[in-house]
Amino acid sequence: MSSEPPVPETRVLAVASHVVSGNVGNKIAVFAMQSLGCDVAALNTVQFSNHTGYKQWTGTRVSAQEITDLWTGLKQSYLDDFDMMLTGYIPGAEAVKAVGQIAEELKAKMQSKPGSFFWVLDPVMGDNGNLYVAKDVVPEYKKLMGSADLILPNQFEAELLSDVKIVDMKSLEEAIETIHQRYGIPHIIITSVTLTHPDHPITSLSVVGSTMTSDRRARPFKIVFPAIDAYFSGTGDMFSALALVRMREAIMAAPGLSQTPSWVSSDDVAPTDLPLAKAAEKVLASMNEVLHKTSRQMEQEMVRVKAEIEGLDIGQEEKAKRLHLLQSRANELRLVRNVESLRNPNVEFRAKKV
Amino acid sequence: MSSEPPVPETRVLAVASHVVSGNVGNKIAVFAMQSLGCDVAALNTVQFSNHTGYKQWTGTRVSAQEITDLWTGLKQSYLDDFDMMLTGYIPGAEAVKAVGQIAEELKAKMQSKPGSFFWVLDPVMGDNGNLYVAKDVVPEYKKLMGSADLILPNQFEAELLSDVKIVDMKSLEEAIETIHQRYGIPHIIITSVTLTHPDHPITSLSVVGSTMTSDRRARPFKIVFPAIDAYFSGTGDMFSALALVRMREAIMAAPGLSQTPSWVSSDDVAPTDLPLAKAAEKVLASMNEVLHKTSRQMEQEMVRVKAEIEGLDIGQEEKAKRLHLLQSRANELRLVRNVESLRNPNVEFRAKKV
Repeated sequence: MSSEPPVPETRVLAVASHVVSGNVGNKIAVFAMQSLGCDVAALNTVQFSNHTGYKQWTGTRVSAQEITDLWTGLKQSYLDDFDMMLTGYIPGAEAVKAVGQIAEELKAKMQSKPGSFFWVLDPVMGDNGNLYVAKDVVPEYKKLMGSADLILPNQFEAELLSDVKIVDMKSLEEAIETIHQRYGIPHIIITSVTLTHPDHPITSLSVVGSTMTSDRRARPFKIVFPAIDAYFSGTGDMFSALALVRMREAIMAAPGLSQTPSWVSSDDVAPTDLPLAKAAEKVLASMNEVLHKTSRQMEQEMVRVKAEIEGLDIGQEEKAKRLHLLQSRANELRLVRNVESLRNPNVEFRAKKV
Repeated sequence: MSSEPPVPETRVLAVASHVVSGNVGNKIAVFAMQSLGCDVAALNTVQFSNHTGYKQWTGTRVSAQEITDLWTGLKQSYLDDFDMMLTGYIPGAEAVKAVGQIAEELKAKMQSKPGSFFWVLDPVMGDNGNLYVAKDVVPEYKKLMGSADLILPNQFEAELLSDVKIVDMKSLEEAIETIHQRYGIPHIIITSVTLTHPDHPITSLSVVGSTMTSDRRARPFKIVFPAIDAYFSGTGDMFSALALVRMREAIMAAPGLSQTPSWVSSDDVAPTDLPLAKAAEKVLASMNEVLHKTSRQMEQEMVRVKAEIEGLDIGQEEKAKRLHLLQSRANELRLVRNVESLRNPNVEFRAKKV
């Protein structure tokens, strides 16, 4: 067990939601990046009691003006020298615009030092065919895509950004190449691809990534891993936080690449040899360990919870509601006692050429 | 190096300030407790760009109503089963009242299970003779003192709570005993005592603690350690977060004590054998390591910063301002890359009888 952080001192600006209880958004991303040695500035876009998957919560959103004010506060005190930025859920079109402005300024500052700033963007818009942000958020995201270095859309968000309907691996590749071409985004990872293929039976999930070539062609790789039969909130946030750190780690291992704009490997690097592929392998290894540990503990807890609820003298509707709440809680990712899975995961699933 | 957390699964409600950049309040307390294996619910009372020691900042305070709403949100989704609570800076008398109400409810819930809830309260009111909260905050703090299990005032705050002017070790003991007697607070640690004494020359600091006896008499111990010639913001927040975890660890090691109201040791336990003394030794060991590492890195950074500022073509006033800001930044506690100092500190300074 090594206690040496995988990256040199890295200053990250993390913009995402905060929940008092539980592990989603910045609540999980900040701890994940800190555990891997990053100095994280956490700009919270909301403060909610718990994540919205519980179907009830309290708390408030931060306005676009407040985001801008906090950024101004950082700048005026020389606290804006970020190596990397991670953005997750941003409430509303105006707030997306405000975050885009921050990215623009950070990009502009690093013009004279190529590779000195890198933005990991999780374009949180929806999932499984449903938009869960206001409609006017989508065009705002599209406008600022050009500044992002690595985006991590899910399958639905990749469709929104590419206008390509993803039905098979061929259309998935097309969506990725469209995103490279249209926005010039150098690195893409599409999380949780559920397409079937001889390589990945229905009980598998895959992650498909690509770093564009000099003429913006896709260099796709995939990593197939066994699916867990449960839904956990916060996995996307944990994925992007780990991807940020592991990307930097992989880049540091490739001589000269960290001084290259957007850390794009030369055209002779094969898809499976991309730093992005190496990073994704480590991220998935950590995810897989944490999700299995979470799943095991969740199952144990639910046996107790179900027995407890069964014994209560309350109506069926009230029982169902309580079960949903306690199930949501039991599904919270277990991170703090599994830091070793973040730091030193056992890499089982390797990137393959698509 | 052990990776096993020092405490069993512990669910903590942490109520304090949040800063985007830097390490004070919940920003440092949450990470410290998470690193030691606690499941922390973080209720942020402010979101500021940086701590107020920079003399300029942006951001907003959370209202008393928002604190109450977030607490309601936790309760309605069965997320209010806390083993411990840590409270730090709370903005204003109404907000202090709202936090007191949370503590009351948590205390009431545990009446049938003695020892199942423990509140660590840092009564943030001022320092070095100066109040830095509104005057009406002091009586509100006094009103809710009766619910606290462990308080961590500095010397000035101990004077405010006891109405005893602390000028020597005798008056310090008197202040502690008054706090035990008047409020029934079982455990007290007074941080950063600067009194001189043959045992502690002027370059030393000491921490003085006590767990009351069954008739509310003081059982004082002290730990003397070398002072570092620099001021670091956030040390109080880090101290109380570590004290919370180490107190639970020490209590778990004393058979039966964790089922005793407020974890008060029986009268035959000597001051230096108190779990509070054992906890304080470990906390100080971690603090000492982190402060030394911070101090060394700060000194290196300031050599560079001073040379840089000297070379700038700006006025003396602007230079002084910039120096203050960069000094504040260089003084931020270095925690994330020194987690080993939190987990496995080398205990050098032992508790002595006063």
